[in-house]
Amino acid sequence: MKHPLITLLTDFGHSDHYVAAMKGALLSVCPEAQPIDVSHEVTPYQIAEAAYLLSQAWSSFPPGSIHVVVVDPGVGSSRRPILVEAAAHSFIAPDNGVLTMALDAIPDYRAWHLTKEQYFRQPVSRTFHGRDIFAPVAGHLANGIAPSALGDEVYDLLRLDSRRPVPVSNGQWRGLVLHVDHFGNIVTSFDRNNFRFVGEQSFELSAGEHRLYRYYRNYDAARLKECFVITGSSGYLEISMKQDSAAKELNIFPGDTLELRTVQQGNSR
Amino acid sequence: MKHPLITLLTDFGHSDHYVAAMKGALLSVCPEAQPIDVSHEVTPYQIAEAAYLLSQAWSSFPPGSIHVVVVDPGVGSSRRPILVEAAAHSFIAPDNGVLTMALDAIPDYRAWHLTKEQYFRQPVSRTFHGRDIFAPVAGHLANGIAPSALGDEVYDLLRLDSRRPVPVSNGQWRGLVLHVDHFGNIVTSFDRNNFRFVGEQSFELSAGEHRLYRYYRNYDAARLKECFVITGSSGYLEISMKQDSAAKELNIFPGDTLELRTVQQGNSR
Amino acid sequence: MKHPLITLLTDFGHSDHYVAAMKGALLSVCPEAQPIDVSHEVTPYQIAEAAYLLSQAWSSFPPGSIHVVVVDPGVGSSRRPILVEAAAHSFIAPDNGVLTMALDAIPDYRAWHLTKEQYFRQPVSRTFHGRDIFAPVAGHLANGIAPSALGDEVYDLLRLDSRRPVPVSNGQWRGLVLHVDHFGNIVTSFDRNNFRFVGEQSFELSAGEHRLYRYYRNYDAARLKECFVITGSSGYLEISMKQDSAAKELNIFPGDTLELRTVQQGNSR
Repeated sequence: MKHPLITLLTDFGHSDHYVAAMKGALLSVCPEAQPIDVSHEVTPYQIAEAAYLLSQAWSSFPPGSIHVVVVDPGVGSSRRPILVEAAAHSFIAPDNGVLTMALDAIPDYRAWHLTKEQYFRQPVSRTFHGRDIFAPVAGHLANGIAPSALGDEVYDLLRLDSRRPVPVSNGQWRGLVLHVDHFGNIVTSFDRNNFRFVGEQSFELSAGEHRLYRYYRNYDAARLKECFVITGSSGYLEISMKQDSAAKELNIFPGDTLELRTVQQGNSR
Repeated sequence: MKHPLITLLTDFGHSDHYVAAMKGALLSVCPEAQPIDVSHEVTPYQIAEAAYLLSQAWSSFPPGSIHVVVVDPGVGSSRRPILVEAAAHSFIAPDNGVLTMALDAIPDYRAWHLTKEQYFRQPVSRTFHGRDIFAPVAGHLANGIAPSALGDEVYDLLRLDSRRPVPVSNGQWRGLVLHVDHFGNIVTSFDRNNFRFVGEQSFELSAGEHRLYRYYRNYDAARLKECFVITGSSGYLEISMKQDSAAKELNIFPGDTLELRTVQQGNSR
Repeated sequence: MKHPLITLLTDFGHSDHYVAAMKGALLSVCPEAQPIDVSHEVTPYQIAEAAYLLSQAWSSFPPGSIHVVVVDPGVGSSRRPILVEAAAHSFIAPDNGVLTMALDAIPDYRAWHLTKEQYFRQPVSRTFHGRDIFAPVAGHLANGIAPSALGDEVYDLLRLDSRRPVPVSNGQWRGLVLHVDHFGNIVTSFDRNNFRFVGEQSFELSAGEHRLYRYYRNYDAARLKECFVITGSSGYLEISMKQDSAAKELNIFPGDTLELRTVQQGNSR
C-alpha cells in the first residue's frame, strides 16, 4: 500500500497540540502514512468508551490499516504497550483492555509487547507515550518492520469484563448502555443477531423508569417525540427519538442497566 | 489528479466514530483519495446551516473536488441520494435541499439519482447512509466512474425556500441571519454585490431591538465593544464586534429577521 | 519531499468552514501538500495561547515542514504577514508575536515580509487572510518558491513580553501558568532544565491559595485526588492530579501567577 492508513483514537480533545504531536512523530518515521482521526473526544480515561468506538470503527478500514489507541490512564506505570495483529489489521495500544471489544469479534489474533526502544522517539517522556512510543512504532510498522522485531510475543492480554447481555430468567436478559452518541441515540449491548425476536414479536425494553415496546425499521417510521427501538448502524439495538435526543428524554447514561424481555402474545400490559 | 479531494460536511460531531467510518468506507474504495473535513458540527438535522457552509466552502477547492454532505434527517425514508455535477465540482448528498445555496451560484448543473447498489457498501444499514452509500459512491466517482453509471438523471431536485432578501418598500429590504460563526460574527443574507449602498451612503440595519449605522472596511477601524457592519469573507454583509461576539451582545440567532434601509442624507435619527 | 507537511494552528473552531477554506486554498496551489491540524480551538484572539501550542508542536514534525498560524486579531490592519525560516522549518503567521516562544528555542532565524500579491488568492478579503494570504503562500512555499521571492527580509519581528520566570529573592522565583490542557494539567513556565532542584530537594510551589510540596516521576505514583508536580511532556513542570483536573481542583487559569522556592532541609512547614 502506498499510503498506509493509521487511525488515531484518543481522549486528548482538540484544544491542545497532543494529537498533532503524535501525527508529527508518526510522519517523521513514515512520511507516506495517512493519519485518520477516529475520535479524540473519548471521555478522559474511559477505556470502555474507547473500546466501543474502536470496535465500531476498525472494520470500515481496508486490510493493512493500523489502529492506534491512546486512552492510557496508566501511562508511565508498568502497563505494557502492545501490538496486536488480527484479521489483517494492526492495533497499537496500552494493554489496559481497550482492545477487548474489537478482539471479541476476531478471536484469532497475535500480540507483542513493545519493548524495543530503538523504535521509540527519544527521550521517552513519562507522560506522553502517544507521541513517544505508540505513534513512532506505528510508523515503523507502516514502513514494513516485522512485529517480532518490536518485542516478544505475549499471550496474556488484559481484558475488560464482558459487557455481553446475561439471561436473568426465561425470556429475559440484562444488558447495559454501551454508548450514547452525538445525536442522543442510546446504543445497547443487545446485538441484533442474538436478539432477533425484537421487531419480530412483542418485547419490552426497560431503561430506568421507562418501558419501550416499539421497534421501527427506520427513523422515518416514528412520530416526533416518540422513543423507539431500532437496529443501529452499530449492529446493536439502539433506543432513538426522531430528530431528538433519546438519552436526554430518558435521562440515560453509558453504563446504565437495561432489561429486555419477550412479551407473550395476548398479554395485557 | 493523483489525490482526489473529497470534502465531508456532516452533523455527526466529533465524539463518535461516524466520520471515521465514512472515511474508511471511502478509502476502502479509493485508497488515493484525500478526505478533508469541512465541518462536522452542523447543528443536528439543520439542513439550512449545512447549505450555507457548503456554499461557502466548495469554491475554495480546486476543480475535480468531490463534496459529500450528510445532514440527513430523512435517512432510511424514500428521500433520494443524489449526485450533482456543476462547475467541474461534484456534490453527493441526500436530496433534501442541502445543495440549494451552492447551486444558486451555479445554475448550470446536472443531477443523478444514486440507485446502483453495486456501488454501495453492503449491507446497507437503514440509519447510516453516509458510510454505506454516500462515501463509497464518492470513492467510485474519484476512481473515475461516469455519473450515468450510478443512476438515472433527474431534473426535480428538492430546494429550500429562497433565503434572498425581499423588498418591503422603497429603499427597504427584509433579510435574515444566515449563520452565526465561532467568533460571534452574524452573517446576514444581504450580499455585498446587491447592497453596495451600505458603506457608500447612510443606512440603517435593524436586528431585533438594535439599530446599526456604522460600516467599516476592516475590524481594526472599530472601537472595542462597538457593533458594526462589515463585508465578510462570505461575500455577505456581516455584523461584527471587535474581538468579541456580536451575536451574544445583540442576542441574535440564525434565522432571525433583519431589516435594511437606506437613510436619506440630512435625516435626523 | 513528495507530500509537504503543512500544519495549521488557528482560533477558528470547528463549527464553520474556515479551516476547510484554508485547506482548499492551500491544496489549490499545491495539490500534493498534506495539511495537519495542530489545533483550531485556541481561545479567540489569544496570541499567547497559540504561541505556547506552536512552541510545543513544531519540533515533533520533520524538517521541511511548514507551520501556518492564524490567530490574527489585527487582520486587515497594517500588521505584517511574515515568513520565518528556522531550524529547517518554515513558519507563516501574522507578525503579532505568535512565533515568540517557538523562536526563543531557535535564535538563528531569518524572516520575510509577505508582500508579493501574485502569490495571494484574489481578491484578498479584509477579514480572512488565512484563506487569502497565509494558506496560498504556504502552498507556493511547498512548491519550492524561494522566500526572497515572497517579499523583503525583515529584522524587527514583534515579540511578546518574556514569560520566563524571574527571581524574586534568593531561592525564589515568580512564574506563571502557560496553559491548562484538556485534562486539567497546569503547565507552568518553570522549565525542567532550569529548575532541576524540584524533585531532587524540598520545594514549595504556590498557586493561588494552594501550596504544593510533592513531585512524582509519573502519574501512577500519586494517590487519587492528590495534586502534585511532574515533568510534563512539554518539558515544563506541570501541576497534575491523577485522573482528574488539577486546574478545576485548584481553580487556576492561564496567566495566573505562580511562585516557586527552595525549602531548606529540616525546615518545618
